[in-house]
Amino acid sequence: MEYKTPTQSRTILTDMVLPSETNPLNNLFGGELLARMDRAASIAARRHSRKITVTASVNHVAFNRSIPLGSVVTVEAKVSRAFKTSMEVFLDVWIEDRESGEREKANEAIYTFVAVDESGKPVKIPAINPETDLEKERYEGALRRKQLSLVLAGKMNPNDATELKALFQ
Amino acid sequence: MEYKTPTQSRTILTDMVLPSETNPLNNLFGGELLARMDRAASIAARRHSRKITVTASVNHVAFNRSIPLGSVVTVEAKVSRAFKTSMEVFLDVWIEDRESGEREKANEAIYTFVAVDESGKPVKIPAINPETDLEKERYEGALRRKQLSLVLAGKMNPNDATELKALFQ
Amino acid sequence: MEYKTPTQSRTILTDMVLPSETNPLNNLFGGELLARMDRAASIAARRHSRKITVTASVNHVAFNRSIPLGSVVTVEAKVSRAFKTSMEVFLDVWIEDRESGEREKANEAIYTFVAVDESGKPVKIPAINPETDLEKERYEGALRRKQLSLVLAGKMNPNDATELKALFQ
Amino acid sequence: MEYKTPTQSRTILTDMVLPSETNPLNNLFGGELLARMDRAASIAARRHSRKITVTASVNHVAFNRSIPLGSVVTVEAKVSRAFKTSMEVFLDVWIEDRESGEREKANEAIYTFVAVDESGKPVKIPAINPETDLEKERYEGALRRKQLSLVLAGKMNPNDATELKALFQ
Amino acid sequence: MEYKTPTQSRTILTDMVLPSETNPLNNLFGGELLARMDRAASIAARRHSRKITVTASVNHVAFNRSIPLGSVVTVEAKVSRAFKTSMEVFLDVWIEDRESGEREKANEAIYTFVAVDESGKPVKIPAINPETDLEKERYEGALRRKQLSLVLAGKMNPNDATELKALFQ
Amino acid sequence: MEYKTPTQSRTILTDMVLPSETNPLNNLFGGELLARMDRAASIAARRHSRKITVTASVNHVAFNRSIPLGSVVTVEAKVSRAFKTSMEVFLDVWIEDRESGEREKANEAIYTFVAVDESGKPVKIPAINPETDLEKERYEGALRRKQLSLVLAGKMNPNDATELKALFQ
Repeated sequence: MEYKTPTQSRTILTDMVLPSETNPLNNLFGGELLARMDRAASIAARRHSRKITVTASVNHVAFNRSIPLGSVVTVEAKVSRAFKTSMEVFLDVWIEDRESGEREKANEAIYTFVAVDESGKPVKIPAINPETDLEKERYEGALRRKQLSLVLAGKMNPNDATELKALFQ
Repeated sequence: MEYKTPTQSRTILTDMVLPSETNPLNNLFGGELLARMDRAASIAARRHSRKITVTASVNHVAFNRSIPLGSVVTVEAKVSRAFKTSMEVFLDVWIEDRESGEREKANEAIYTFVAVDESGKPVKIPAINPETDLEKERYEGALRRKQLSLVLAGKMNPNDATELKALFQ
Repeated sequence: MEYKTPTQSRTILTDMVLPSETNPLNNLFGGELLARMDRAASIAARRHSRKITVTASVNHVAFNRSIPLGSVVTVEAKVSRAFKTSMEVFLDVWIEDRESGEREKANEAIYTFVAVDESGKPVKIPAINPETDLEKERYEGALRRKQLSLVLAGKMNPNDATELKALFQ
Repeated sequence: MEYKTPTQSRTILTDMVLPSETNPLNNLFGGELLARMDRAASIAARRHSRKITVTASVNHVAFNRSIPLGSVVTVEAKVSRAFKTSMEVFLDVWIEDRESGEREKANEAIYTFVAVDESGKPVKIPAINPETDLEKERYEGALRRKQLSLVLAGKMNPNDATELKALFQ
Repeated sequence: MEYKTPTQSRTILTDMVLPSETNPLNNLFGGELLARMDRAASIAARRHSRKITVTASVNHVAFNRSIPLGSVVTVEAKVSRAFKTSMEVFLDVWIEDRESGEREKANEAIYTFVAVDESGKPVKIPAINPETDLEKERYEGALRRKQLSLVLAGKMNPNDATELKALFQ
Repeated sequence: MEYKTPTQSRTILTDMVLPSETNPLNNLFGGELLARMDRAASIAARRHSRKITVTASVNHVAFNRSIPLGSVVTVEAKVSRAFKTSMEVFLDVWIEDRESGEREKANEAIYTFVAVDESGKPVKIPAINPETDLEKERYEGALRRKQLSLVLAGKMNPNDATELKALFQ
């Protein structure tokens, strides 16, 4: 079986917040950030699989910190775990202060992508071999999140979601 | 305490899929759909609260069905449950066949919004009084999802998430 | 002959006014509203005809009320009358006050669409059966407006425009 | 009283038809053309009045000829007649064949603009002094169209619309 | 050999500066102006060659004057010299004061385009016959700039760049 | 005097080529790439100076390789040399093959930015201390390019452009 590291799919999209992308409080629109993260995550999924990739689901995304107009926003995406034909992509979003140059975490997000062929049929992809502690932690969590997804979609009995169930015992 | 029904915040955004919004398979980009849903959900949250509203989180969103170029897409958003200053908004997305006129469910999504004043501080909002069976079911599930959010964010001990825990017993 | 009601083509496009869509007075650009109305009207025409539809003409559109940045704008389109291969679509545009929730009429517009096949050739469409008083009034006016169009385009002798002529006698 | 010629407000906007601006038949979207015409007309109105200008109405616009993807489209706008605070702007739209270089008229449109001050209040503008035969013909027609507007908006009794009435006698 | 004058390719793109196109100082973004100039230059190159044209290079562009939000910007492009399959397009950009109507030069730019067939292969184009003094001066300079381009790209020995070398002696 | 390395301003903008950004040959539009490079370069200039930065000029940009629809494009920008208040930013653009994952250089570009305060007045910035061989080579070339800029703008006598003149001897 082929293995790849999360670093091999690492994708960075640094861009500004333009006036057309703000809400009435002059902060970046949630929807615009969701779209940017989708594009970066899609490229990471493609770099891991070397296939066409389509968004399968968006898992919990928390907008902890508003991002003001004129900010420089860095979206960083890495594949955190791969299953047979699907991948979990973990995203970290930072903004940086223009004057001090300090970076601050704005939010995290998790997207799932499926690799497909030209006709849209799912195809097999390499597995992930996590390296750093953070990568290992995210790799472990990915199975729990996959079970959660299946339970919420009514495709798995909660009692079969062993990883998830363990959380509550 | 003031109550409103989900119908009072109902928001419909019907629009087409333009060439600039498609992925390499000629289907609607995940990121574009996420942005449209964010706008519709934001209006629903505003109609419920009559305040400025900002995206707090996106819960599980599954893209079950690809949406081809040229489709007519209807995004329908309703507040499913309100907490003190935050609201869960439930979205249903349909596409319709041009020739038969039949509607097909493309996907569902759940967004959470917070109502804020001009300075960005959270403000109190009315509660929800669900009417139909579906609205009641979504109202019930909202608490479970809120607990899940808090648990995943490390802000609640899994053992205190009583609603959620019940799922696994 | 097949008949449909205006309600069967009813299309609602509720969306916000973003900063990128405003003029120097911070109100929605006329051109942007014209484009939104065109998209909603095009969907209504398609729902009525179940064919590909293309804009044939825009009749009188009055911008009575400016629409400020941040407004929630609802465009509602319904086919008001169908001729052999063309349809008149009547649009009503409302904005709503965030705090009171009150809706106010911002403007009306009338677009004409033609139903075509894949090669762009006009095709036959169902007739309209108006139900409410307003729908009947708009249905009646549609013939007058069609004659006016033809007269202004130099394709009909003013003296043959019987419906129109009656207005001035 | 100050006079200006239509030439003094002449505005040319030549641009391409990009893939994001097309309908399912691969022709320029009606709505996009309406928006481009609005921008060109707005600049012409501003050149005539040297004031801020806002779209007041769109009169009859016929889309006689579809404009395919990749076309070079020239929108030409000139103020055809000025009233106290409002102006009629006449637009001609051409496309040109890439290989032969021949220009073909695609459609005409008429927009009305009002000149306003910083607070949005209408302000007085110069009159128009038409020079060519076509400019004179359009100048004459403008009063008829203004009456038609008022009649259709229910702000003028058809019998007082002397210019218009003459058409039908 | 076929000759054309610069006037035959003259292309005018007059448009406004919208809020979505500004930088944090409320002036037109450099990148947006570069894109508008590319579109106008591309049309001029196409009018000269009557072929598909693609951007080959952008020569020195100086942004001498910032262009504030709400400005009316006129980009004027003309082919200044044609070589076998490539053309130099010279652009002049003006802004005009709304109140006085005075035009002021904002900047100049030089783009190079190549004419290609459907498969992307370069094709022969007509030569340029400059008429005015300014056109002649730009025509002369074009060869010097072409040599400079080749030298900077390491495709010509500086000592063979006779036109360019003469500048320094 | 304060010094920074080029690495400290390194900015990466990885994004896809969407259908709305292509020319009639289905490759990325020159104008769109110019705009993306401007945004990345502007962030690099800001990271170096920690000031507001505005585009001053674009030096020679060659489009050596067309970039097809659906490509993943990486724009990498680093400040190559700083003068008193202006900076040269060097950009490298790569595309990568989806199947093999191989990166290929698509083009290079050089932009110049000026650091300004809130009122638009130029302000002093740190100098550059190049580290790698490539950074040193670009650092050396920057002065030559600055002289070339001044000569072409008629602001320096060619005979005073000592660095540039040396090229031709």
